[in-house]
Amino acid sequence: MPVEAPIHGLRALFFDVFGTLMDWRTSIAGEAEKILGNLGYSLDWTAFADAWRGEYQPGMEEVRTGRLPFSKLDVLHRKNLERILPRFGLENLSDEVLQDLNLAWHRLDAWPDVAAAMKRLKQKFFIAPCSNGNIALMVDLARRNDIAWDAILGSDIARDYKPKPAVYLAACDALNLAPGQCMMVAAHSRDLAAAASCGLRTGHTVRVNEYGPNSGEAGPTVPVDVAGKDLADLADELGV
Amino acid sequence: MPVEAPIHGLRALFFDVFGTLMDWRTSIAGEAEKILGNLGYSLDWTAFADAWRGEYQPGMEEVRTGRLPFSKLDVLHRKNLERILPRFGLENLSDEVLQDLNLAWHRLDAWPDVAAAMKRLKQKFFIAPCSNGNIALMVDLARRNDIAWDAILGSDIARDYKPKPAVYLAACDALNLAPGQCMMVAAHSRDLAAAASCGLRTGHTVRVNEYGPNSGEAGPTVPVDVAGKDLADLADELGV
Repeated sequence: MPVEAPIHGLRALFFDVFGTLMDWRTSIAGEAEKILGNLGYSLDWTAFADAWRGEYQPGMEEVRTGRLPFSKLDVLHRKNLERILPRFGLENLSDEVLQDLNLAWHRLDAWPDVAAAMKRLKQKFFIAPCSNGNIALMVDLARRNDIAWDAILGSDIARDYKPKPAVYLAACDALNLAPGQCMMVAAHSRDLAAAASCGLRTGHTVRVNEYGPNSGEAGPTVPVDVAGKDLADLADELGV
Repeated sequence: MPVEAPIHGLRALFFDVFGTLMDWRTSIAGEAEKILGNLGYSLDWTAFADAWRGEYQPGMEEVRTGRLPFSKLDVLHRKNLERILPRFGLENLSDEVLQDLNLAWHRLDAWPDVAAAMKRLKQKFFIAPCSNGNIALMVDLARRNDIAWDAILGSDIARDYKPKPAVYLAACDALNLAPGQCMMVAAHSRDLAAAASCGLRTGHTVRVNEYGPNSGEAGPTVPVDVAGKDLADLADELGV
């Protein structure tokens, strides 16, 4: 390991989680199939995952614009789920099943390169999620996927949702760091552009199959400080 | 390990940190001696540590009562430090030295039983600090003392200070747990009484040398769910 990171003064890495670290689409489709398949339902499970995820941005926008007070993502996920039920003929699920289904977001699996790369990155940098996922959700994903976060940052501590500046800035402030000492890592250029506008460094990792084969960004569409084809490659770029 | 914890439904342990996990007095005295001794000062180092810590509750009380807006503990520690400087003839320290001294709180050493006991406890429970220390401070202590928190909870996420109910309740809420599924662990009965009044379970551990030989509580002075002579003993009591 080189003594100095290639980016001078970099101390912390903040990670987007859904899509960047976790394969939410395959995981949600699999969890839905397990829970609802057992009840005799037969759906297009990836279409179900995509529909649920499709309500993600509109759900958070209610909070970002101030139309709704801050609610943690588990609460929004539940509302979003209830919104799509009629489209899949699922109006009659019990509250217990809906709760179990909602917690599918706590049981996502990481992309295969994540656990090992995070261990490398932690040797040199503070690592924390800066996700729109809530703390309980992040804690469950960390245990399941063997990620040893230094702290759970993101929407719950900012009480707002990315890409609003408050979320990135609250993460820096929580670690007593200036934005220039922190890097946002994501597979989504929109997230990185917002972080950069707050003064954070940016690192892009490719997750080209996030929404299905060759659906994700093949590379950053905005200027970034570093880019990797996956998280291991990004760790190489960062000199760890 | 028994399948069920002796306390039914217990899911998370929240820890007081200063005194309960960390030997702040010896650590602060040692850090002060290292920093100020090198500059030629010679003080009663434990008296210095005690004086600094003596400003701790009054400093937080300004926030608890609403006279000051929430400030993270690093900021209060700095104010408290400046308050005691004249008593020790330290009025002429540079800002750089004061900053280094203030970060002594990030370099506390844990009591010797802590690291191993926390590893045991984490196998069965979520573990998080519910401390008045800020996130950056907790992160540094965790790295230094090999504690693998699931999340950093406490004053920064509640934006208030213990023993106010909001701090305990925010910790439970962050993990999506009811107070009765959570246990506050502390060497201080006042902390435990406040947690109990919010519906949390309580665990007492003895730190009889916290303020010097035989200065701390020899046992809880309020009713608690479990009590141990140290954290290893408490882990035994909790069946891990």
